[in-house]
Amino acid sequence: MITLTTDFGLTEHYVGAMKGVIYSINPAVQVAEITNAIQSFDVLDGALAIAQAYSYFPKDTVHLVVVDPGVGGTRRPIVASVGQYFFVAPDNGVLSLVYEREERVTVRHITSEYYFRQPVSNTFHGRDVFAPVAAYLSKGVDSSKFGEEITDYVRFAAPKPKATATNTWKGIVLKADKFGNLMTNISAKDIPQIFDGSSNAFKLTVGKAEVTRLLSNYAEGAPGELFAILGSSGFLEISTNKGSASRIAGADKGSEVAVSVAEGPARGD
Amino acid sequence: MITLTTDFGLTEHYVGAMKGVIYSINPAVQVAEITNAIQSFDVLDGALAIAQAYSYFPKDTVHLVVVDPGVGGTRRPIVASVGQYFFVAPDNGVLSLVYEREERVTVRHITSEYYFRQPVSNTFHGRDVFAPVAAYLSKGVDSSKFGEEITDYVRFAAPKPKATATNTWKGIVLKADKFGNLMTNISAKDIPQIFDGSSNAFKLTVGKAEVTRLLSNYAEGAPGELFAILGSSGFLEISTNKGSASRIAGADKGSEVAVSVAEGPARGD
Amino acid sequence: MITLTTDFGLTEHYVGAMKGVIYSINPAVQVAEITNAIQSFDVLDGALAIAQAYSYFPKDTVHLVVVDPGVGGTRRPIVASVGQYFFVAPDNGVLSLVYEREERVTVRHITSEYYFRQPVSNTFHGRDVFAPVAAYLSKGVDSSKFGEEITDYVRFAAPKPKATATNTWKGIVLKADKFGNLMTNISAKDIPQIFDGSSNAFKLTVGKAEVTRLLSNYAEGAPGELFAILGSSGFLEISTNKGSASRIAGADKGSEVAVSVAEGPARGD
Repeated sequence: MITLTTDFGLTEHYVGAMKGVIYSINPAVQVAEITNAIQSFDVLDGALAIAQAYSYFPKDTVHLVVVDPGVGGTRRPIVASVGQYFFVAPDNGVLSLVYEREERVTVRHITSEYYFRQPVSNTFHGRDVFAPVAAYLSKGVDSSKFGEEITDYVRFAAPKPKATATNTWKGIVLKADKFGNLMTNISAKDIPQIFDGSSNAFKLTVGKAEVTRLLSNYAEGAPGELFAILGSSGFLEISTNKGSASRIAGADKGSEVAVSVAEGPARGD
Repeated sequence: MITLTTDFGLTEHYVGAMKGVIYSINPAVQVAEITNAIQSFDVLDGALAIAQAYSYFPKDTVHLVVVDPGVGGTRRPIVASVGQYFFVAPDNGVLSLVYEREERVTVRHITSEYYFRQPVSNTFHGRDVFAPVAAYLSKGVDSSKFGEEITDYVRFAAPKPKATATNTWKGIVLKADKFGNLMTNISAKDIPQIFDGSSNAFKLTVGKAEVTRLLSNYAEGAPGELFAILGSSGFLEISTNKGSASRIAGADKGSEVAVSVAEGPARGD
Repeated sequence: MITLTTDFGLTEHYVGAMKGVIYSINPAVQVAEITNAIQSFDVLDGALAIAQAYSYFPKDTVHLVVVDPGVGGTRRPIVASVGQYFFVAPDNGVLSLVYEREERVTVRHITSEYYFRQPVSNTFHGRDVFAPVAAYLSKGVDSSKFGEEITDYVRFAAPKPKATATNTWKGIVLKADKFGNLMTNISAKDIPQIFDGSSNAFKLTVGKAEVTRLLSNYAEGAPGELFAILGSSGFLEISTNKGSASRIAGADKGSEVAVSVAEGPARGD
């Protein structure tokens, strides 16, 4: 099985050409699209999408991840064995959040042109390099055949929330999803006081909105109310019941999130 | 075979995560997307899409329908045997228009957590409840294993056109499609006089437009002309030749449609 | 294997209904979407997409191409054997750019209603005519069964760049892709002087922009710079590094492209 995560969009032939190359090499493979609507050139957006989806697939799935603004330049194509999965991608950090979640990571620089589609264009390695390598991997070609192991592969740290003073933090909105939910970079581990009920109260500001309630599901929200909720990927989200929190708060990807947690009286009083 | 009809959109990992869960349980299944671009939280929009697509699939297809604004709250997850098909969905009426078309309907409340992905999040039952149940169904697990039959499942009536006086009716636009065709809730049975040529004339108003011609195909329309046509789902549509009727009429989903049919002279005179 | 290239969009049940019809006839077939987001009614847009994707698929793939503004009218449905592939489409020129690339072309007018879904609607031959014919083809039904060969099938010439004076040409933008790259109709054969380094310089104007550099990959471009590049489909494109050339140039599909090539000094002087 091969999955696709790209920024090639839905309106052109690009994804179709990649599928054709894959099926021509391995007609028996299943191809499952995760999304081809990653924001153009946005490596972090691609990194978030694949990190939140890869682990649900069967062992040995080949995840093809092509968000590749540096195509044709000096960035390396890589094949990575990470946990139970294979990844084929440009070495630009798009796998960073996957590396972060797994202990076993082996990355190889793809150099064996034998597996490429010829001639290799300078603008579409998705078709000419990444798709054929993924297809051969799915046929059982050993990953060592594609090139030598490297250890200096590119990885960036996901942006983490920062403590700005006692009981106050600053985070950011990583993504506004299709519903308008604002996914922050704050996980339950980062500020456990919000999630475990151990403190009196918290206050979160994002855009022009202030949020003071943590709910456990959307339906508990009053109409138009913004609330915090633990999202399905383990991050704090700002949401609203049947509406767009992004629109209500006037906040979007990149917006700053400030959190403060009350301390004291309630605990032991 | 499993189909997907959801409002999860095309830009996030949500649909990918559901596919991963499905393939992990049943690697041999075919997954076919009907659409993942149902309007957010819009149960009627989902009901229309699945009702217009399900019956073309092979017998025993499992239709997974997740438009689920009440996720994590009190609404029940259900598995329904309807006609020759299985449906897995939240019990919020999203299957209403399917129930309406079939005689044999058996609905069960999914309670057997054995088949869920653990832990079950409060915000993404598509991944944790509906996808695994659909996958097990597609592997041949009997629907009775998932829970007890219920008879008080939620169903709403599709909005029907109403006679407002002799030979006049009011209906609504159920949907403007990608081309701008305005699909109304008026079927050939509702106002047969429009379709069978038995009356002199009809007049239909929608938005700022007045329509007086019924055509049998788009190509007969003059440039810029709005006309009525019997759509492929059996409903009256207002369309134009190679253009957007929605834009020309200034009408969209929810717009009112008034119809009057002339009586008299032509008939028997 | 069957591929889909249509203008039916992603938000309705149309593509789902077609898939259902296909799988009902041939449950074992693989269905791969090239794109269902061709611009509504835009036969040239469809012609470009299929021409750039079809040849990557395995031999004997059935390419189903439905951009069909004349549905229900007098245009014929056709099945074409072109090169190593089958195509099922309306006879409106949508296969023109495929015919152009292949030597072996046999086109048949589909008339055998035995293979249609009944009743045949006047507005959705994708579901009732094209999908079932494609499915039967994929099951091995001989193309001669669907109807008689015709030679007067519709084909249009792709718009070609024109020499307007010595060393000057006029072309057009065929398409702005999702990234904002402007794909022109100028191939390396049309103005080899741009690509082979044999002349001193060229100047290209499109929208409000002037382009004088040919780069071999995106990453070489300075921030905000527009440059020319040989695209992955063999056409000259105007691009920018990690941005939208369309937005920067204020140009889009249909925009005129003027090119002049300097002559003289450098060559033999």
